[in-house]
Amino acid sequence: MNIKAPRGTADVLPGEAKKWQYVENRIKNICDRYHYNEIRTPLFEHTELFQRGVGDSTDIVQKEMYTFEDRGGRSLTLRPEGTASVARAFVQNKLYGDANQPVKLFYFMQMFRYERPQQGRMRQLNQFGVEVLGSADPAVDAEVIDLAMTVYKELGLNSLKLVINSLGDQESRTNYREALVKHFTPHKEELCHDCQSRLNQNPMRILDCKKDREHPSMSTAPSILDYLNDESSSYFERVKAYLTTMGLEFEVDPNLVRGLDYYNHTAFEIMSEAEGFGAITTLAGGGRYNGLVEEIGGPDTPGIGFGMGIERLLMALEAEDKELNIDEQLDVYLVAVGDETKEQAVKLVHELRNSGIQIDMDYQGRKMKAQFKAADRYRSKYVLILGEDELQKQVINMKEMETGEQSEVSLHDIGEAMQKKLLGGKGHE
Amino acid sequence: MNIKAPRGTADVLPGEAKKWQYVENRIKNICDRYHYNEIRTPLFEHTELFQRGVGDSTDIVQKEMYTFEDRGGRSLTLRPEGTASVARAFVQNKLYGDANQPVKLFYFMQMFRYERPQQGRMRQLNQFGVEVLGSADPAVDAEVIDLAMTVYKELGLNSLKLVINSLGDQESRTNYREALVKHFTPHKEELCHDCQSRLNQNPMRILDCKKDREHPSMSTAPSILDYLNDESSSYFERVKAYLTTMGLEFEVDPNLVRGLDYYNHTAFEIMSEAEGFGAITTLAGGGRYNGLVEEIGGPDTPGIGFGMGIERLLMALEAEDKELNIDEQLDVYLVAVGDETKEQAVKLVHELRNSGIQIDMDYQGRKMKAQFKAADRYRSKYVLILGEDELQKQVINMKEMETGEQSEVSLHDIGEAMQKKLLGGKGHE
Repeated sequence: MNIKAPRGTADVLPGEAKKWQYVENRIKNICDRYHYNEIRTPLFEHTELFQRGVGDSTDIVQKEMYTFEDRGGRSLTLRPEGTASVARAFVQNKLYGDANQPVKLFYFMQMFRYERPQQGRMRQLNQFGVEVLGSADPAVDAEVIDLAMTVYKELGLNSLKLVINSLGDQESRTNYREALVKHFTPHKEELCHDCQSRLNQNPMRILDCKKDREHPSMSTAPSILDYLNDESSSYFERVKAYLTTMGLEFEVDPNLVRGLDYYNHTAFEIMSEAEGFGAITTLAGGGRYNGLVEEIGGPDTPGIGFGMGIERLLMALEAEDKELNIDEQLDVYLVAVGDETKEQAVKLVHELRNSGIQIDMDYQGRKMKAQFKAADRYRSKYVLILGEDELQKQVINMKEMETGEQSEVSLHDIGEAMQKKLLGGKGHE
Repeated sequence: MNIKAPRGTADVLPGEAKKWQYVENRIKNICDRYHYNEIRTPLFEHTELFQRGVGDSTDIVQKEMYTFEDRGGRSLTLRPEGTASVARAFVQNKLYGDANQPVKLFYFMQMFRYERPQQGRMRQLNQFGVEVLGSADPAVDAEVIDLAMTVYKELGLNSLKLVINSLGDQESRTNYREALVKHFTPHKEELCHDCQSRLNQNPMRILDCKKDREHPSMSTAPSILDYLNDESSSYFERVKAYLTTMGLEFEVDPNLVRGLDYYNHTAFEIMSEAEGFGAITTLAGGGRYNGLVEEIGGPDTPGIGFGMGIERLLMALEAEDKELNIDEQLDVYLVAVGDETKEQAVKLVHELRNSGIQIDMDYQGRKMKAQFKAADRYRSKYVLILGEDELQKQVINMKEMETGEQSEVSLHDIGEAMQKKLLGGKGHE
């Protein structure tokens, strides 16, 4: 009998969890500076939300969702992405009525996609993302892209590529769509099965196909940029001008169409160019979705956002050999020797923790030598030694591990002494 | 068309999310002082894990689990509680082989239970919990209880009741079980349907039944404490002595049996006694489970832990009228007037954010007056005003909102000036 975690999922163990915490805290700090607030939505939604909000014809909805019926016969789906859930929460909680517009949100979410697991592609994956709802200002597009880039840069990544595109407004897309159908129809039989149905459902997605990438018709396909109407084109120009103002370098890739149905205007991806990063180089992707909120039952509301994989971010940090600044040391380890000292040890540890000190002790009945070894393994800054002699004299031995300095302090004063050493005299607030 | 969140789930919106973040950060700080490390496990597990690890006869497994088949035909279950998942991760990742024992873990997890939703009982609920694996020292039991109590106390709760009990070891339980069967069998027909089957499967759980609470046989039932063998009894005495040493008050309630199959020795619950808290008063519950790790395929390993509902913790804070210390102010709002200033405004906001300042600006095309109103709504500490005149002179107006003090600063120096005001001269690290 040996039960493992389900395929495509992974535990985050303590050593690794410290990296996750560090990354999440840095990202939250950035969100705070950019004035984005957190939102949390349930792990599952009514299946209909994703059918409408992600798009019935997408791979996600057709092949990859964890869909099930609950005990009441409702069809529920573990969220495969964040935008539809956030938009649903925006509508249900009437955030469009808030005086503060746009509503700038961030989230950390687990997503679920039933795909073949491989490096950088898990069935349960973690994403940081933002959504800005309620503004159609191209400066917001630039802000959102800037926020994503700031996350990577502040964590130390250098080998980044920002790629942008415009998918235009409805009119531009309709015209472009016609041009694509006209272009690919003569080659229909040569394209893969998926692309043959894409030709009717969503021809833009043919440009994204991995199987047909080398087909000669791909390089001669018309470019969306030639089909943008004046308004869409001027919108895109302003996004690019703001990015340039911010000093952000980018490439324009007219084939960047993104996998979801609801995008229009700005689309973008951030890629890692680090050597050895692996086959999947996309770190984050997003875009504008001005029709989505209305599609799921809310008022006509512009929106833009992105999703960023945390697993891939950690992989990119590793590929670029970036060390995170994580404190791995234990403040204090208490070595207690002799049965008589145990109760005093428990009491002291309790008191020091409650005054703001990080401290641990032995719970394995180890001898003194093994307790010192444990203190070493935890890289303790200080070791306190309590033997039966010390207990009788109501003192304790304090050893600073870096200097080897040792002194005897009364049990009554040790709390204050440790606070001075470790917290600069300030107790725990 | 109006899609809502599934019944029994709720969104956490930005205002509320700040409370969650605050509470989670305080709890993480406490875990750090107690030297517990975070673990994260997948949202779902193979169903068998909970059947074995929570217990086939429990209400959770029989009635409340979200169980479904994935596209590969595996039976998966959204986790209903945390201990079985953590124990599975402990076994799968061979944490029992780590030199640092016991392994002290904490987690924040969403749990899923298909119950009738009511106040304080959601279908998706959030728990903080800890698990200590690898030590059978009663001082660990006390440490775990102390940690839970410290969380509540540091967040400001006063009306708390700690209730403990011992369920003894296997021998004690076997003897007690026999006594219970003997005691309740004459009353079998008078007990509720559930208790009639509990009489065979797990008679201790009769003591926990809400329906039969008033049945006269309940008050005359034998007490587990009279059936503890010497070892179990002495273990319980030591737990109580350590709690007393730490200054923690507690009540012993021999009817406290907890809902899960795997508990032995120490069991405990923490209740809110705040007026108006509601019908369900349990804030946290836990206990020792020395047989669990072996049950799910690992080596014989002692363990103890608890789970604490975050929703109920927030309800208790509200019932006791505790305000959390949350900064709701925005550092800086930039008022930009005139089309010409927009690009400079975008640039400045980008630069200030990247130097560590929290700043926002208008994205709604608002006039100056409406921008000032927005700054007020955000309770901005500073407002920067950039008009076309200022732009031409390459300056900006800086207003401190509390004092009304206003001064003109060159665009070149404004970053440094804001850093001095808000970060004490230190830039963002």
